[in-house]
Amino acid sequence: MKIRVIHGPNLNLLGTREPSIYGADSLQDINLRIDHHARSLGIHVQIDQYNCEGDIIDAIHACKDTFDAIVINPGAYTHYSIAIRDAVAGIGIPTIEVHLSNIHAREEFRRTSVIAPVCAGQISGFGDDVYILGLNAAKLLLEK
Amino acid sequence: MKIRVIHGPNLNLLGTREPSIYGADSLQDINLRIDHHARSLGIHVQIDQYNCEGDIIDAIHACKDTFDAIVINPGAYTHYSIAIRDAVAGIGIPTIEVHLSNIHAREEFRRTSVIAPVCAGQISGFGDDVYILGLNAAKLLLEK
Amino acid sequence: MKIRVIHGPNLNLLGTREPSIYGADSLQDINLRIDHHARSLGIHVQIDQYNCEGDIIDAIHACKDTFDAIVINPGAYTHYSIAIRDAVAGIGIPTIEVHLSNIHAREEFRRTSVIAPVCAGQISGFGDDVYILGLNAAKLLLEK
Amino acid sequence: MKIRVIHGPNLNLLGTREPSIYGADSLQDINLRIDHHARSLGIHVQIDQYNCEGDIIDAIHACKDTFDAIVINPGAYTHYSIAIRDAVAGIGIPTIEVHLSNIHAREEFRRTSVIAPVCAGQISGFGDDVYILGLNAAKLLLEK
Amino acid sequence: MKIRVIHGPNLNLLGTREPSIYGADSLQDINLRIDHHARSLGIHVQIDQYNCEGDIIDAIHACKDTFDAIVINPGAYTHYSIAIRDAVAGIGIPTIEVHLSNIHAREEFRRTSVIAPVCAGQISGFGDDVYILGLNAAKLLLEK
Amino acid sequence: MKIRVIHGPNLNLLGTREPSIYGADSLQDINLRIDHHARSLGIHVQIDQYNCEGDIIDAIHACKDTFDAIVINPGAYTHYSIAIRDAVAGIGIPTIEVHLSNIHAREEFRRTSVIAPVCAGQISGFGDDVYILGLNAAKLLLEK
Amino acid sequence: MKIRVIHGPNLNLLGTREPSIYGADSLQDINLRIDHHARSLGIHVQIDQYNCEGDIIDAIHACKDTFDAIVINPGAYTHYSIAIRDAVAGIGIPTIEVHLSNIHAREEFRRTSVIAPVCAGQISGFGDDVYILGLNAAKLLLEK
Amino acid sequence: MKIRVIHGPNLNLLGTREPSIYGADSLQDINLRIDHHARSLGIHVQIDQYNCEGDIIDAIHACKDTFDAIVINPGAYTHYSIAIRDAVAGIGIPTIEVHLSNIHAREEFRRTSVIAPVCAGQISGFGDDVYILGLNAAKLLLEK
Amino acid sequence: MKIRVIHGPNLNLLGTREPSIYGADSLQDINLRIDHHARSLGIHVQIDQYNCEGDIIDAIHACKDTFDAIVINPGAYTHYSIAIRDAVAGIGIPTIEVHLSNIHAREEFRRTSVIAPVCAGQISGFGDDVYILGLNAAKLLLEK
Amino acid sequence: MKIRVIHGPNLNLLGTREPSIYGADSLQDINLRIDHHARSLGIHVQIDQYNCEGDIIDAIHACKDTFDAIVINPGAYTHYSIAIRDAVAGIGIPTIEVHLSNIHAREEFRRTSVIAPVCAGQISGFGDDVYILGLNAAKLLLEK
Amino acid sequence: MKIRVIHGPNLNLLGTREPSIYGADSLQDINLRIDHHARSLGIHVQIDQYNCEGDIIDAIHACKDTFDAIVINPGAYTHYSIAIRDAVAGIGIPTIEVHLSNIHAREEFRRTSVIAPVCAGQISGFGDDVYILGLNAAKLLLEK
Amino acid sequence: MKIRVIHGPNLNLLGTREPSIYGADSLQDINLRIDHHARSLGIHVQIDQYNCEGDIIDAIHACKDTFDAIVINPGAYTHYSIAIRDAVAGIGIPTIEVHLSNIHAREEFRRTSVIAPVCAGQISGFGDDVYILGLNAAKLLLEK
Repeated sequence: MKIRVIHGPNLNLLGTREPSIYGADSLQDINLRIDHHARSLGIHVQIDQYNCEGDIIDAIHACKDTFDAIVINPGAYTHYSIAIRDAVAGIGIPTIEVHLSNIHAREEFRRTSVIAPVCAGQISGFGDDVYILGLNAAKLLLEK
Repeated sequence: MKIRVIHGPNLNLLGTREPSIYGADSLQDINLRIDHHARSLGIHVQIDQYNCEGDIIDAIHACKDTFDAIVINPGAYTHYSIAIRDAVAGIGIPTIEVHLSNIHAREEFRRTSVIAPVCAGQISGFGDDVYILGLNAAKLLLEK
Repeated sequence: MKIRVIHGPNLNLLGTREPSIYGADSLQDINLRIDHHARSLGIHVQIDQYNCEGDIIDAIHACKDTFDAIVINPGAYTHYSIAIRDAVAGIGIPTIEVHLSNIHAREEFRRTSVIAPVCAGQISGFGDDVYILGLNAAKLLLEK
Repeated sequence: MKIRVIHGPNLNLLGTREPSIYGADSLQDINLRIDHHARSLGIHVQIDQYNCEGDIIDAIHACKDTFDAIVINPGAYTHYSIAIRDAVAGIGIPTIEVHLSNIHAREEFRRTSVIAPVCAGQISGFGDDVYILGLNAAKLLLEK
Repeated sequence: MKIRVIHGPNLNLLGTREPSIYGADSLQDINLRIDHHARSLGIHVQIDQYNCEGDIIDAIHACKDTFDAIVINPGAYTHYSIAIRDAVAGIGIPTIEVHLSNIHAREEFRRTSVIAPVCAGQISGFGDDVYILGLNAAKLLLEK
Repeated sequence: MKIRVIHGPNLNLLGTREPSIYGADSLQDINLRIDHHARSLGIHVQIDQYNCEGDIIDAIHACKDTFDAIVINPGAYTHYSIAIRDAVAGIGIPTIEVHLSNIHAREEFRRTSVIAPVCAGQISGFGDDVYILGLNAAKLLLEK
Repeated sequence: MKIRVIHGPNLNLLGTREPSIYGADSLQDINLRIDHHARSLGIHVQIDQYNCEGDIIDAIHACKDTFDAIVINPGAYTHYSIAIRDAVAGIGIPTIEVHLSNIHAREEFRRTSVIAPVCAGQISGFGDDVYILGLNAAKLLLEK
Repeated sequence: MKIRVIHGPNLNLLGTREPSIYGADSLQDINLRIDHHARSLGIHVQIDQYNCEGDIIDAIHACKDTFDAIVINPGAYTHYSIAIRDAVAGIGIPTIEVHLSNIHAREEFRRTSVIAPVCAGQISGFGDDVYILGLNAAKLLLEK
Repeated sequence: MKIRVIHGPNLNLLGTREPSIYGADSLQDINLRIDHHARSLGIHVQIDQYNCEGDIIDAIHACKDTFDAIVINPGAYTHYSIAIRDAVAGIGIPTIEVHLSNIHAREEFRRTSVIAPVCAGQISGFGDDVYILGLNAAKLLLEK
Repeated sequence: MKIRVIHGPNLNLLGTREPSIYGADSLQDINLRIDHHARSLGIHVQIDQYNCEGDIIDAIHACKDTFDAIVINPGAYTHYSIAIRDAVAGIGIPTIEVHLSNIHAREEFRRTSVIAPVCAGQISGFGDDVYILGLNAAKLLLEK
Repeated sequence: MKIRVIHGPNLNLLGTREPSIYGADSLQDINLRIDHHARSLGIHVQIDQYNCEGDIIDAIHACKDTFDAIVINPGAYTHYSIAIRDAVAGIGIPTIEVHLSNIHAREEFRRTSVIAPVCAGQISGFGDDVYILGLNAAKLLLEK
Repeated sequence: MKIRVIHGPNLNLLGTREPSIYGADSLQDINLRIDHHARSLGIHVQIDQYNCEGDIIDAIHACKDTFDAIVINPGAYTHYSIAIRDAVAGIGIPTIEVHLSNIHAREEFRRTSVIAPVCAGQISGFGDDVYILGLNAAKLLLEK
């Protein structure tokens, strides 16, 4: 079982960026935790972070015929990148949208995802546990 | 660790209600699965289903000083019951909102939750796996 | 042919409640008239009135495998009870929404029904004749 | 008792036009059925179909002092013809708006009628039975 | 100086149509008054009433090279007939929009004119005096 | 002079629920204060709290022919319960809507009351003094 | 017959202010023309211009028992001064709203008048002829 | 205890202005009643009425260090004067907004107050009793 | 291959109507060009222009079983004629919507077509070349 | 080079008014700083503060033929005073809108300026430095 | 005559991406067809596909002084990339927006193009024929 | 004092791009002027221009611990790039948003900035002087 984890824009700032919202762990810490949990589930993960919308689209395309599922935190692109939505819909691999903060409890414009409608589901909140839950969800989905 | 699972209106119809959206398992099947998974995590669960908004509010109030977390699928009340929102906010116990279907992929009016803003997070989609994920999320949250 | 007639909230006040809008007959008068007309059509009717949203949901659930059709006047719940909508959609019995007053001629917020989209049809206006028309519609529908 | 039945635009296509929505009977079939039912109720009906908004207005005007009620299916004009609304309001004859399909279950723009607010009531759904119900409603209304 | 006066849909009902809003004079009475006032101003008027949107468009087109100004009461078409708007804009003759009732004091949907933006001006209210004022306005405009 | 005081959903949590918004007094404390003030004004009060919308409707209905006025804090139902609005309008007893917090200073969705339009008036803010003011208002109203 | 003409804010700039919109005549020129036309109609006019909303309210109040009608160009206050609207409604003297430019052809925010709904009518466009038309309208209105 | 009562625009017309909405008492009558009630509560009141928005702002500023609370009926300015809102917020004295009519039962645009969010609370309805209630509220607030 | 070209309202004014938007060629010039191009493609065209919405509906109906495709410029009806939309949907012949001007670059209300959603496609802009492109598109479509 | 600086409503409260938003300096302090900076740039400034909308309009009018530019902080009037907008547009002197706080970071209603569209530009944020920047901008503008 | 064809994001997936919407031909197939048709028209084409918004902007800039026209399918960027709009407007070369699917028949958010207003025109629908039509349109445009 | 100046998309076209809006100077000219002014203030500036959203995010991230402030003209990204907003918020360096044209005087969609709410302030208008003002603002801000 192979899963690609894609972190969207500004997530490279984790640990220093608005820690009251996004937590104090760095992206490196979180990636280690994701990798560790994936191993415990027998999942191979590849983890990347991109600031550029086009790079995220390329990364999604590259999953075709290579990965079984995608766990993606599209960051701010969640709210307007119809191009990423179309990439997800276009490759037909089950995709799980995750968010560190509970986007439904934040500014009005952060409460809507243009990407979630083409995903298998969305998990929002729970800090970096959200990646653990995303992997669990992917595994449950793929084993059905 | 004690967690209350609350199923909202019409979930008693599961298995027969629009199975293409909500799946073919009955609520009894799902509850067995929830109970089984909770035991495996060392969690004591109490599971109830209510059609009446007032009963859900009472059930939430009753969690105070008795349960460590709530996993709630508020069903249709998700979209308008500010009274349930206030109950969740009022007792101060971490609450996780879950949905069998990916509400973000459905009718416009199902995409907004008035309850999620006062929850720890929301998990939407994944069929009845969502309750498994909800328990996992609660456990991760409480062990932080 | 068995049909359940469900009166929603505040309809127990009929005859005394805003008679210029809702007419001068009491609910008892209307129920007699419904029962009389049903007999003339060879229909068995059961008639109930509920103020509680949860009780209406229960009543709709109870129709499954017991009644052939439902004639429902959801009263004020027409405009916001997605939970009743889901109950109607969930049991799969032809349901006819009726209103004593022409809701399309009243306040803006009364012109939209969240329940009608999952009904066979909606009849609005005509005072208590609307129940006669609702029974007629159900009979025509069931005999197709 | 004299009632005029007015079919609006595109209803001449019935039977061939989107039969999954509008049914397989031709307008001629339906008119025969309307006429037959009217006779059984002791009602004289005149039935016409018009594609032109102005012709519908003229037809409504012509009812003044000649007909006791109007049963009208304004078709697509339902949603924007304030001119037809004003014609109905201007002649002061009880008018019943009917629709073959349940407009409340269709595209957003078909859910609002600009004409219904000046009608005695609206009946929506039930296929061509809606004309039978419209005649019944008119008779009940006129005999009050 | 030649001016065409165009009455829109339902104005043929004047005198009998909702007299509390539109006054008790018939269209014939009003036309006599218009004609009399026009003569006193040295204006030749041609007055017509149409229920059909297409006929109004034709009438406007016919003014080109024949009339110096148009006084039009577009009735209900005021609120949605972009086709009449384009006709007015297309012929380039000064056009004055008039309304018997003060449309700004009526239902929300009557407060907006899609035609007025391409007219020289709009006069709204004043009962049938509005036609007198419309002729005065046209004369002042043409004599500038 | 007999007045019924109705507390809506979640008000049973008072004292422990978000005290920065709703104050530190329990509902029992407040009820004692209401009762004491009523006695000083020569008013007989009956005080109840309900979480269920249907129970509030029943309580309002029961006031007919029994109470002279109602002081109601509809809690979260303020913002969507058209059914409670219709109950208030249906019994025709002067009703005063009160709120502990100034709802006009809170979230957008708390600033609109669907019930206030059929009440004698609304008093919003002032903590538990609002019930004292509500009784004063009722007495002034009834003595006019 | 006594009529007060009230010019609103910035109209003292006429002649120099955006002449392509408002014309090249100064307010003094226009006032002379108004006065001259009023005399010809046997009307006594008092003409004033105010930049301050409160002064306009005072001027309207002062008309009570002193003037038979008001012709007012509220300028920019047209679009938001509910206080001027209430002044007009409060004194009960027929009031005619006039505008030099056709406000329906300008920016979106200039197309709505909060004052017109309580006026006898609105005349918009026609440059300074609008005051002549306003006086004519007032005379016709008062002589009815 | 010193309280300033500020009446906003058009309230000087009370008694003659739309008495079905605002009552038959003149402002002088009401002021006497306010003064009388204040004395009975041991409150010194200063009462003024202004039509000009700027004068109301000045009056509010003048309360700083001089009065303990303000009771204000901002009249039509309620709905748009952000400048008055900022004056209230700027001086930091508890302010109570009152309205003679129940603004929540009137035109849509009268249901929103831009000032209430910075007040201690709002009392709406109850005719001139609202000033009595406003004084009571101020006293309760200041004695806490 | 037989194609019907339908010109909507006001297109008979072409050449004289707002030439900066619609070009300097008359409708006759354009029709000659259409006819010439059709011949070169081996297409038989019938070309008509109508100002009346009802006539356009009739013309569309008449295409059934007679023409292979329709190229229609619905003019102003583009933006509100749901009746024309239903006619197009009702006959099931591939229809191509064309516009002389780029409607997406014009007033807000011209940017939406209620007819395009039931057409094979829309071509907007390019002056009278748009008819050439419309014929090309029809030919490509029919030859697939 | 002569520049008029106009402070709008409530700015006389500076130093005591919500200092966390508007800073701790009094208006007098700020005016000294403005004057000092102006001298250093060789600019003659006249500085005034007004609470009344009408006074601000008068002040703007008075700049005509007397000042080379205006630096204005319209305070709360920014968001609704179309009358001030028209005054600025009417005199044709380059005007610069400034705000102490970053209005784009505040309540939704403070993010829109009805005056800025007719100004040379807007500077928002930077505390009282904004007046320094406003003078700099004016000088740069006038020296082009 | 030199024309640049730019394919936007996800179009590299053509043939495998949602073929029911976008067709079964690969982008390579389509490009061959475009090239072939261009040759037949005597047009030199350069064809590229980009997923990154910035790359599309660069490609548009590069057309300046090098190409005579652009045919662009902006894919999902159509609906939000104001940056691409500004690039098109900035270089001043006639640009034609094309879409494989009829965007006016799809989800609401796909019906609006932020780029079309600065293009010569838009062609939407017709599958890959749309590129043929786009080239034809460009040729007609350039030969005028 | 080190300040980074970031020019957003399409600003490389300056001088040739719509000069009536953006001025006739090339970006190189402007950069020279910025550099010259910075030197005069004792500021070290680094200036870059990017068309790609991701590159702008990277550039902002790179300022952390390296620059004291950012002056950014986000061009079209101003209106939708929540990703750039989050980058600015994430690094915590004072950022000043500038625009060559007065965005508040342009198309509706250009009047809102999603980035300004997390900046120290916004300066809009003044042509290329806006960069001079931006540097001045940064210096004033940093010297506080």
